[in-house]
Amino acid sequence: MMDRLLRRCRIKSSLFRECLAEFFGVYVLILFGCGSVAQVTTSQNTNGEYLSINLGFALGTTFGIYVAKGVSGAHLNPAVSLTLCVLGRFSWTCLPFYVCSQLLGAFLAAATVALQYYDAIMDFTGGHLTVSGATATAGIFSTYPADYLSLWGGVVDQIIGTAALLVCVLALGDPHNTPAPPGLEPVLVGAAVLVIGISMGSNSGYAINPARDFGPRLFSYIAGWGDDVFRAGHGWWWIPVFVTCVGALLGALLYELLIGVHHPDSEPEDAEDLKAVHQQTVELDGMQPQFDTVKENGKHGIFSITSADIG
Amino acid sequence: MMDRLLRRCRIKSSLFRECLAEFFGVYVLILFGCGSVAQVTTSQNTNGEYLSINLGFALGTTFGIYVAKGVSGAHLNPAVSLTLCVLGRFSWTCLPFYVCSQLLGAFLAAATVALQYYDAIMDFTGGHLTVSGATATAGIFSTYPADYLSLWGGVVDQIIGTAALLVCVLALGDPHNTPAPPGLEPVLVGAAVLVIGISMGSNSGYAINPARDFGPRLFSYIAGWGDDVFRAGHGWWWIPVFVTCVGALLGALLYELLIGVHHPDSEPEDAEDLKAVHQQTVELDGMQPQFDTVKENGKHGIFSITSADIG
Amino acid sequence: MMDRLLRRCRIKSSLFRECLAEFFGVYVLILFGCGSVAQVTTSQNTNGEYLSINLGFALGTTFGIYVAKGVSGAHLNPAVSLTLCVLGRFSWTCLPFYVCSQLLGAFLAAATVALQYYDAIMDFTGGHLTVSGATATAGIFSTYPADYLSLWGGVVDQIIGTAALLVCVLALGDPHNTPAPPGLEPVLVGAAVLVIGISMGSNSGYAINPARDFGPRLFSYIAGWGDDVFRAGHGWWWIPVFVTCVGALLGALLYELLIGVHHPDSEPEDAEDLKAVHQQTVELDGMQPQFDTVKENGKHGIFSITSADIG
Amino acid sequence: MMDRLLRRCRIKSSLFRECLAEFFGVYVLILFGCGSVAQVTTSQNTNGEYLSINLGFALGTTFGIYVAKGVSGAHLNPAVSLTLCVLGRFSWTCLPFYVCSQLLGAFLAAATVALQYYDAIMDFTGGHLTVSGATATAGIFSTYPADYLSLWGGVVDQIIGTAALLVCVLALGDPHNTPAPPGLEPVLVGAAVLVIGISMGSNSGYAINPARDFGPRLFSYIAGWGDDVFRAGHGWWWIPVFVTCVGALLGALLYELLIGVHHPDSEPEDAEDLKAVHQQTVELDGMQPQFDTVKENGKHGIFSITSADIG
Repeated sequence: MMDRLLRRCRIKSSLFRECLAEFFGVYVLILFGCGSVAQVTTSQNTNGEYLSINLGFALGTTFGIYVAKGVSGAHLNPAVSLTLCVLGRFSWTCLPFYVCSQLLGAFLAAATVALQYYDAIMDFTGGHLTVSGATATAGIFSTYPADYLSLWGGVVDQIIGTAALLVCVLALGDPHNTPAPPGLEPVLVGAAVLVIGISMGSNSGYAINPARDFGPRLFSYIAGWGDDVFRAGHGWWWIPVFVTCVGALLGALLYELLIGVHHPDSEPEDAEDLKAVHQQTVELDGMQPQFDTVKENGKHGIFSITSADIG
Repeated sequence: MMDRLLRRCRIKSSLFRECLAEFFGVYVLILFGCGSVAQVTTSQNTNGEYLSINLGFALGTTFGIYVAKGVSGAHLNPAVSLTLCVLGRFSWTCLPFYVCSQLLGAFLAAATVALQYYDAIMDFTGGHLTVSGATATAGIFSTYPADYLSLWGGVVDQIIGTAALLVCVLALGDPHNTPAPPGLEPVLVGAAVLVIGISMGSNSGYAINPARDFGPRLFSYIAGWGDDVFRAGHGWWWIPVFVTCVGALLGALLYELLIGVHHPDSEPEDAEDLKAVHQQTVELDGMQPQFDTVKENGKHGIFSITSADIG
Repeated sequence: MMDRLLRRCRIKSSLFRECLAEFFGVYVLILFGCGSVAQVTTSQNTNGEYLSINLGFALGTTFGIYVAKGVSGAHLNPAVSLTLCVLGRFSWTCLPFYVCSQLLGAFLAAATVALQYYDAIMDFTGGHLTVSGATATAGIFSTYPADYLSLWGGVVDQIIGTAALLVCVLALGDPHNTPAPPGLEPVLVGAAVLVIGISMGSNSGYAINPARDFGPRLFSYIAGWGDDVFRAGHGWWWIPVFVTCVGALLGALLYELLIGVHHPDSEPEDAEDLKAVHQQTVELDGMQPQFDTVKENGKHGIFSITSADIG
Repeated sequence: MMDRLLRRCRIKSSLFRECLAEFFGVYVLILFGCGSVAQVTTSQNTNGEYLSINLGFALGTTFGIYVAKGVSGAHLNPAVSLTLCVLGRFSWTCLPFYVCSQLLGAFLAAATVALQYYDAIMDFTGGHLTVSGATATAGIFSTYPADYLSLWGGVVDQIIGTAALLVCVLALGDPHNTPAPPGLEPVLVGAAVLVIGISMGSNSGYAINPARDFGPRLFSYIAGWGDDVFRAGHGWWWIPVFVTCVGALLGALLYELLIGVHHPDSEPEDAEDLKAVHQQTVELDGMQPQFDTVKENGKHGIFSITSADIG
């Protein structure tokens, strides 16, 4: 009965379904990720440490992908969606819908973390919601640079961090390399986020994802931390939003130039072969949503997988 | 010979077998989980830290599931069993049997932890078994809220935590999404418990399971900690028991509404297809016990898997 | 050429091969396990912490199993070998050979650790090799009880710890339950050792393995720590040697009585079925060495797998 | 379009492709590994701890292998390449090309870490780039021995550490033992690096890889740390370069003598069998690059896989 009620809510539009999945995936990512920062911050390191935060974002990514991957391919990151468009593996038309869903998921997850940790934040700060100082809590939601970091240092930091993410993600999903075992891609992408946090988190908190940073920042702006969230770090906010996209493109370019384009068998000769490889790609490539009938009936229509995909 | 003796003990009732498995699974979960709290508490953080406790409950869950999954489906949590009933994936008739087995397992595991750490607890407390204060040890067994937490804060905390658990568990077992690889479901559900502990453990110790909290609390009440275990935190005890069930239902509803019901191919057209998908579900769905002959001969009889299962 | 030389060393006796594998597997286990204790002890917790030691023994177990499993089944623990004999899954004739190999591996690994950490131990202790005191280093090699632990407390501790190990190991290898995925059994047995260290390590250092404790203790006795290694803790040494065997048997009994014997399809009716199940068992059961021709030609002869194996 | 541009860059020489993969794999390894040391050092242990460094090198190894394995087999370590040559599993002709690529990758990754942490290093050191003292930062790039370590202690340390690495790696890739599941080899080799760091990192920082140590050391020499990087530790620099090779050979010898050569079915009788086993080896052996047409058309030509490979 319950099930019959639920089924009435079924949405037929595949784009809408995918946007729901991206929304929910990013929601889970941020709920666990920012939640772990909230726990470490408000407990003053007694209920966790820096490594807990790394694990929180890593496993948040893992479960965000498990929630969304079968439906939308689980980009969960506007910089990833953009890069896939540039590589010809995702549709430019869908890009704005994905990005908005990702931002909305991050915004609402930040609100949920604030709700869950409301008493803790009030107790820790005495009610003063600040961006800096001994009881600063804005860092629960979005990233801020270390005091020593220059503007160019921040740009370089986010370029390298996001490029490293894309290199790992593309390697894990490359069917001509050593792809992650089916069903474990989410764990391995989470491991990539873990190692980036362990090795590149110190300068500015490894945003490496515009939605992860801007959605919660917007929430903290509205929820009482004020316009300091945009002014702090000499106007740091735009670096995790725009520079990460440059980093993602650079990382993809590096992987393709050094590894991807050189795979010897990546140029199938006739349509029959193409289809076979295509099928294989769909099964193996961790970055692609599931679809069976893309070109045949044009029902879903938003993905145009061509031979450009292979390699 | 040994084996022949053992075989005389074989139980034919499948419900009884499943109850034994639920009992033993929760026993293992609590033995490792509460054991890790006992270790950190009585060694005053020298033989472990907060992260050890998170790992203890996470791996306790993993091995609890390995012990029980092939027999009972390894719910190991009354809130999970209840939610599966509401979703039509588990029988209401079996629910009370499962819940009692889970409670009994948690109770006896708490007793075992108290036995194993008897000398340590006596040495640490000087024999004074208390719920609060510098040498409080009641927290080894069940959860207590942080001082700052309000009643509503506690309710919200347990709803969000248990909802997060169900979202992860349903995603891992959804054959139309990215299901966990066969044989690794226990590890991944353990990882979900780990990230919940890392990001949602600070307010009240992430009970997210009525049996995990109430069974050991009952033991500590009987074993000498007295009725403070029920009075502490302004009568906190009922929140992990009842509010977690609300959270579990909310989480399941969210997953189904945002992801589950929209899978395009979840409405097979004829009986043949139904059966095929059914088989697949059984193999892939981490939440279902193994059964081959459910409807055919009615021997086991307690599971009624209908098309409502798919989706 | 190198390869041709190596091939001249081939040993045809399968028992000898298996003993070499057990020897080398335990060697790897102790090399990493005791090595991690040496690192934490001599660096005074700057290059590691309690959790490092738990990880050292866990991953030591994992790689010990990878080294030996394909040849000998990787018992790596006399208490496990004994239990498999009692369950009818291992030959009593081979037991003493396995146990001696395991002890020798542990002894030589302890010597290797002492060699690798020679300078560090000399620097840390000033050359005084002691069992107790601020610069005690005997704990690098074998386990010693906490000051508060009574004799009975120690007995209970080792019984519960080793029983927990066997419950996990039997569950992971039970083809009628949720067996570990092929090739990942070593990782999951390592995870069991990890959680035992996290939740049961505080009282007496979770020996749970006679060879792990006695081999290195013998080495430390000979190498300069003197007969204090046997007298410390009111003659603690025999508890990890003998009580662990009782615990292993109890754990196996519990798993079989609560889960193992009740599997419905564990009584095949005719020889054909038996053989089919047998094959499956061999492939799935993490506890069995590889063998193809056990009864057919009697060449290896040491394993007698009967229907008692199934269940 | 993007894709068409990229495809123009395709390189046909398989040796060149493989060198690019080795270069990029080691680059990723060092980027994450040395990055984690930079984070812990410059944040003075607030954004990480010793275990973070262990995880940084472990996951760096994992993703380095994911990046390179499908193309070059992912040796990522001159000592591994050399050992595979001695075992007859890799071509001596390719060895110098691989080693140079590995060194170049490590050098450039060290430069990238210095770039990313430029502001942090300047802030932490006040601009004084030193090899020893309270604000020493040379340890970010390469290893230095502990004060207590003698020359012979260092030699023994690097022999044991690298031998342990090779034993684990050979076990994981041995098709007649318990090989790692396909697609998870990178994770398990990373776990081996983790446990070596946990149990053998204290004496001299577990270089266990000539390229990992010498490439970044050369960078730090050029970049301002001066010739102290070669003089420190009584001229320590050559031990991680040459002694690791001895250790790797010893480890391989031990594994082959104790386990590898004794596999009963490792001597196929005729060409047909040989080919079948050969195919299997290629699929399972984590140490071999992918190749399909090695001898048939001689196009790639650099690998000569003979029956010496099996065993």
